[in-house]
Amino acid sequence: MCQVDSVGMPVVRFALVGAGVVGSGVLDIYFRDKVLWKDREGLDLELVGVATRTPSKVRHPVEVTTDASDLLHRTRPDFVLELAGGIDFPFELAKIAFEQGTSLITANKALLSEKGEEIFKLAWDKKLEVGYEAAVAGSIPIIRTFRTGLAGCRFEKLSGILNGTTNYILTQMETQGWDYHRALAKAQELGFAEADPTFDVEGVDAGHKLSLLASLAFQRKIPFSSIWTEGITKLQSIDIRFAKQLGFRIKLLASCQFMESGFLASVRPTLVSLNHPISNVQLELNAVTYNTIETGMGLLTGKGAGSLPTASAVIADLLYYAKRRGDWTRERNTFEAGNVSPIGTGKSRFYLRFSTVDKPGVLAEIASVLGQNSISIASMHQDSSEEPIQVILVTHSALEANLRAALEVIDAKVNIIKENTVSLPLLQDL
Amino acid sequence: MCQVDSVGMPVVRFALVGAGVVGSGVLDIYFRDKVLWKDREGLDLELVGVATRTPSKVRHPVEVTTDASDLLHRTRPDFVLELAGGIDFPFELAKIAFEQGTSLITANKALLSEKGEEIFKLAWDKKLEVGYEAAVAGSIPIIRTFRTGLAGCRFEKLSGILNGTTNYILTQMETQGWDYHRALAKAQELGFAEADPTFDVEGVDAGHKLSLLASLAFQRKIPFSSIWTEGITKLQSIDIRFAKQLGFRIKLLASCQFMESGFLASVRPTLVSLNHPISNVQLELNAVTYNTIETGMGLLTGKGAGSLPTASAVIADLLYYAKRRGDWTRERNTFEAGNVSPIGTGKSRFYLRFSTVDKPGVLAEIASVLGQNSISIASMHQDSSEEPIQVILVTHSALEANLRAALEVIDAKVNIIKENTVSLPLLQDL
Repeated sequence: MCQVDSVGMPVVRFALVGAGVVGSGVLDIYFRDKVLWKDREGLDLELVGVATRTPSKVRHPVEVTTDASDLLHRTRPDFVLELAGGIDFPFELAKIAFEQGTSLITANKALLSEKGEEIFKLAWDKKLEVGYEAAVAGSIPIIRTFRTGLAGCRFEKLSGILNGTTNYILTQMETQGWDYHRALAKAQELGFAEADPTFDVEGVDAGHKLSLLASLAFQRKIPFSSIWTEGITKLQSIDIRFAKQLGFRIKLLASCQFMESGFLASVRPTLVSLNHPISNVQLELNAVTYNTIETGMGLLTGKGAGSLPTASAVIADLLYYAKRRGDWTRERNTFEAGNVSPIGTGKSRFYLRFSTVDKPGVLAEIASVLGQNSISIASMHQDSSEEPIQVILVTHSALEANLRAALEVIDAKVNIIKENTVSLPLLQDL
Repeated sequence: MCQVDSVGMPVVRFALVGAGVVGSGVLDIYFRDKVLWKDREGLDLELVGVATRTPSKVRHPVEVTTDASDLLHRTRPDFVLELAGGIDFPFELAKIAFEQGTSLITANKALLSEKGEEIFKLAWDKKLEVGYEAAVAGSIPIIRTFRTGLAGCRFEKLSGILNGTTNYILTQMETQGWDYHRALAKAQELGFAEADPTFDVEGVDAGHKLSLLASLAFQRKIPFSSIWTEGITKLQSIDIRFAKQLGFRIKLLASCQFMESGFLASVRPTLVSLNHPISNVQLELNAVTYNTIETGMGLLTGKGAGSLPTASAVIADLLYYAKRRGDWTRERNTFEAGNVSPIGTGKSRFYLRFSTVDKPGVLAEIASVLGQNSISIASMHQDSSEEPIQVILVTHSALEANLRAALEVIDAKVNIIKENTVSLPLLQDL
């Protein structure tokens, strides 16, 4: 199956496709540590070549080409590291790799979100591996943790801050008092946000990652299309400020929870209690918190992106799979479909912000509709005396379907309500 | 090497020694999930027997005996799970196991602290494994994370809350306003602290765990004897209160840092900034935070003790090593000795609490000695007007040797200083 070097040590051969931000980090770590891995772990890793669109940027002593498929065909490596980005090209590459017996390691969550089912099935049929630690939460070794450290555990819930761009924006809105647009502009200036930030700020990127993570944790396919996704664009400075005053911090939380009736899966801005460790995960950091029957709550946090943080995850996959070739078992990525429930079946406390006219009886009218829908109010707060008046209510635990029914009625009262009501769930418990 | 069952699936056989709190958790998970592991992972795990001092407590369908060595000799399993506690008995057991080709999985940090060097060497020579995920930080899969997820990383620093008892006491002192003795009594009542709490409250237990963790992270032996260890017994409510007022929370922090001149390794109460995620790790939770060149800061938190949390780590080790039998490489636990520097060579900001008489000129005298030792003061606070007056100073970054020299001079001034000065380092940066 594998080659052996001059002293009888097995040689594991790999090719690198893509030498941009992450790929160059991988090259730096590889050339720094390959002798160390050989000495310390008995692992002889040979880089057979690099395929990239800009060969002149590769400064390490290795064969460089622009033709990735030719490189794979010629060298037939054990692993290909796909760090090129896009979807069609890496998908073709994956098919070529699997066809010839090469395993795939990738940082490409868009690829796995679009083509994951086919990729995982092709690899499984050929008894090959797909490593994607780098596709979720950058430097946080969350995939490996779910597969090994928590292998004996039954998951009940997981929640994560899986998108660094939006976490950076929310942190700046809070700490600098900036509005959304100013915080976004700053993130773009620093390279934390793309020119078109839609995928990040609308929660799509976090949803792709949640799909991968939840499927693995619950061993059921939770497709992106089944995840309720809300972004951060409708949040205002007042929401951030009031959340803080109430003892919370707003985070774009990606969550999946097992319920008897089915999974609840969502990406949405959430008020996280300042006593919850995830509330202190600020700026571009990512985090994942989980609950299992055995361990109770656990949390991992770290950098979610960047050259070396993401490269460290690619290298970890390479070392891990290189060492376990010859194992009896492979890692499963294809699961039965999970039964995902509509978001309305979930229960939570809620933060509600109503934009109302300045007239007596408005609060009574709102409270009455909420009451008719079995929603009880825990506290009320009011901001400014200029119209629209901002009325903030925090509810006791309520069924989300009831809340939505109530808000539909309330928001239709155009004589007293000036803008659509903002409703955000609360995360309180550890 | 291994047996094969009737459909050609490899069978991995293991024995359990000790069926107390953790052992019974292991039995519960095993009997719940063994069919699942077989179906899902192709892993057929066979429990060959349980040795325990109280056979009547084992209610699962398995052979139970009081004679552990006889069980090992008769069954010759692939793995023995040592959950008996103590040192001499499990050490004998480990030697019997290695002699006959059985790998060891243990939750026993005292054993590894006392006999680790011999155990790791015996196992290595026989090409066997030693799993000890459960010995450090209970449910947090930190050993596996250091070995796999961060395999490509160079550690710069690690800090942890590795003892749940002291973290519970410190949390109660803060949130309930209790003094140390009352908080300890409550911890004992709830079973979080032993009748003789010395090992926990003096930092010995955390030091044992730091020794294991730091050795693995830095791939250098950091023996317990080289770790500077201070407990929490001299802390007073006023320290907890002032820390909070200054924006910090006191944690018993176990730390190891790589410096050009050598490692700095300590267990000591530390003021952790409320902005640092580890400050929110409360009650009996544990946490580990690390810095590597590649990832920057990362943190893991979760339950550090208890039946199922610790059992989940034992099971994770069992599943992991059972699957990787046949790997090319083994996991190394024997390292060259690390060069550990005296604690005085470290630099930090410090919180200082002086107990002084109520006389003019006292502060000038203290400040003058600090100044002569190159320690500059960032802020000053004073509590109460009754003697002894509590004067709190926060310093700028200072060499600890200079601080100790200064405090020796100051504490000798018995005409103005009533008790030994309390000095605690600050942890500020992420």
